Amino acid sequence: MTQADRWMLPDGIAEILPADAVQFETLRRRLLDLYHCWGYELVIPPMLEFTESLLIGMGHDVDLSTFKVTDQVSGRTLGIRADMTPQTARIDAHSFPRRGANRLCYAGQVVYARPRTPMGSRAPIQIGAELFGVDNLNADLEVISLMLESLQVAGINQVHLDLGHVAIYQSLVEAAGLNDEQRGALSAMLQSKATADLCEWVEGNVAEQKAAEWLKALPGLVGDQSCLGKARQLFSGAPEKLLAAVSDLSQVAESLSKRYPAVTLFFDLSEVRGYDYETGLVFAAYTPGHGQALANGGRYNGIGAVFGRDRPATGFSSDLMALSNLGGASADERAAVLAPDINGPDRAALWDVINELRGRGEIVITALADGADSELDARCDRELVAEGDSWAVKPRQ
Amino acid sequence: MTQADRWMLPDGIAEILPADAVQFETLRRRLLDLYHCWGYELVIPPMLEFTESLLIGMGHDVDLSTFKVTDQVSGRTLGIRADMTPQTARIDAHSFPRRGANRLCYAGQVVYARPRTPMGSRAPIQIGAELFGVDNLNADLEVISLMLESLQVAGINQVHLDLGHVAIYQSLVEAAGLNDEQRGALSAMLQSKATADLCEWVEGNVAEQKAAEWLKALPGLVGDQSCLGKARQLFSGAPEKLLAAVSDLSQVAESLSKRYPAVTLFFDLSEVRGYDYETGLVFAAYTPGHGQALANGGRYNGIGAVFGRDRPATGFSSDLMALSNLGGASADERAAVLAPDINGPDRAALWDVINELRGRGEIVITALADGADSELDARCDRELVAEGDSWAVKPRQ
Repeated sequence: MTQADRWMLPDGIAEILPADAVQFETLRRRLLDLYHCWGYELVIPPMLEFTESLLIGMGHDVDLSTFKVTDQVSGRTLGIRADMTPQTARIDAHSFPRRGANRLCYAGQVVYARPRTPMGSRAPIQIGAELFGVDNLNADLEVISLMLESLQVAGINQVHLDLGHVAIYQSLVEAAGLNDEQRGALSAMLQSKATADLCEWVEGNVAEQKAAEWLKALPGLVGDQSCLGKARQLFSGAPEKLLAAVSDLSQVAESLSKRYPAVTLFFDLSEVRGYDYETGLVFAAYTPGHGQALANGGRYNGIGAVFGRDRPATGFSSDLMALSNLGGASADERAAVLAPDINGPDRAALWDVINELRGRGEIVITALADGADSELDARCDRELVAEGDSWAVKPRQ
Repeated sequence: MTQADRWMLPDGIAEILPADAVQFETLRRRLLDLYHCWGYELVIPPMLEFTESLLIGMGHDVDLSTFKVTDQVSGRTLGIRADMTPQTARIDAHSFPRRGANRLCYAGQVVYARPRTPMGSRAPIQIGAELFGVDNLNADLEVISLMLESLQVAGINQVHLDLGHVAIYQSLVEAAGLNDEQRGALSAMLQSKATADLCEWVEGNVAEQKAAEWLKALPGLVGDQSCLGKARQLFSGAPEKLLAAVSDLSQVAESLSKRYPAVTLFFDLSEVRGYDYETGLVFAAYTPGHGQALANGGRYNGIGAVFGRDRPATGFSSDLMALSNLGGASADERAAVLAPDINGPDRAALWDVINELRGRGEIVITALADGADSELDARCDRELVAEGDSWAVKPRQ
């Protein structure tokens, strides 16, 4: 690496510079304040932990995404976190256990060893909220609502909410008696929306007629709320677990339509993509013109079992940088006051005057040297000027 | 690792749980707001970068402290940051260059591969401010003042400020014509305050009589402001650079005594420890009963040269977790309001009532299920109660 390119950052790893950082910090505070008002308590997990604590059935993708280093102190393998959800689950299970509901939130950098999407960030800042200890629709609704409130706070107005339920696909696969290899094949076809291939494959692989019919119908159960009615008809006689999932989706849709009439609801009953550890209702929010989900989450009961405490859980998270870039939450763009050299003679009173202004939230920048100073030119619209024995703030000439 | 101990964290790596996290977040915001009002602009550098960008003459200690991983994308070595100062210097040199003064601040987790002190943290949260582009005492004074203001904001009242100047020791070593090996030996003796050994060593190694005399006097130049007067006498005839350094210390002491009369000033003209890349005035703040420095910093001109832009610089940083634990900045400890199940029948109006309360900054926690819930018992001192068609906040029974 030559001297000239030492300033380069690795692919997919970005820094946030002042103009964006103010906007970012403003949004970060507003979101954490929102979570606080909903009763979600802040936790700050460490940047790296033993891999055994980070990779707890989160799926192969998270394992591959995790940078690993050898700990010189313990000789064991540490991982740089690629997701703060397992850290929060560990805290709920062990460090900060509560009987009943435990509401936790967090915001921090996570790192991916390889980008999850082409050109995607490898160092997003994850912000999210998790609700442990309650396994009912009230909890799911609270978490989805808080996610939608987050987007509102971020200034994102046009929101599409995708809803799905992992139990639908799981029940059908069980009913069809598929083995692991067959499940893999089916899942790939569903993900690529290869409906014709899927129908042919089902006819060749699923003997039980009802189960085959249900599986073939799955890719068509996508769209607005009307697809839930269609599903109820189609799945008549299907396993109880599947019917309960459809009913859960209907109830959630009804409540959300009342609370957030401006949000467009979209259902995908064949959703299997990207939900490696979810066990129930799953959801993702989109906005037109932005391909990636702005925020997503779902129910993931049982994750705490590896820490010795099996708890129901649901939650969501989001990339705070992406939210900040998209939403354009208006940053507090105050101009600054220029103060002359405070260390010169006859300047004893100036120190107190400046501190008083700063105490009121004004930005006061002191001139440190004579001569051109681009920072002062760019930022200061007013200046402190001596008036007899005192100092006054005047517009800059 | 058995299932039962998966919750363990590596030695020296801590997490912050809710009660402490609120206090921590409150202090984080107050400090960033303070820096904002002084004209320091926030930057958010990434958690890891190419090692060539992180290890830029920061000394062997920083190199050993830095976890390294191989980047699968570039095939090159990345380091997890152990210090945000070089990242900020890179930003000043390249990403966010300004003519004249550039004031930047930051707050973020850093990670040490090995603890710097026995039992010390390996994942502190570094907060700091750096002032680039100005090489004068005004700039040094501004940065030291901002460091002292930070401790004040953190609620730390008894502050001892250690002041030193790297040029003093450097000038004497040059005047004595010592080679690298000799410098190492001398530095070790100064660090261990082995005065008798040092005198003997100087007599055997430094031929020039004046230089030998100065070096032998160095360990005695420690204490309150009076040691600066002693130094001026002793060093009469010494190199100009040394005398300028002593004069700088006097001027800084005079200004600081006026601005912060409650701060105890302490001088150590033989200070060499831990300042690997500093080039001028160095400083560290202590409080009684806490062995480690609460905050420290100094002038480190020239660091940007490796990024193609050589700039004067001074700055300070601090461990935000240590400050938060010590200072006990009173966190905003509001109690919460309990709301009944909002999804039940006749509860349509409740949603708006809750949102209105939350909008005013109240914490409102909704009951998600019947039965015992320790979170609600512990946190809610009031509850929402139906009164005819409306809802009222009442103290909990």
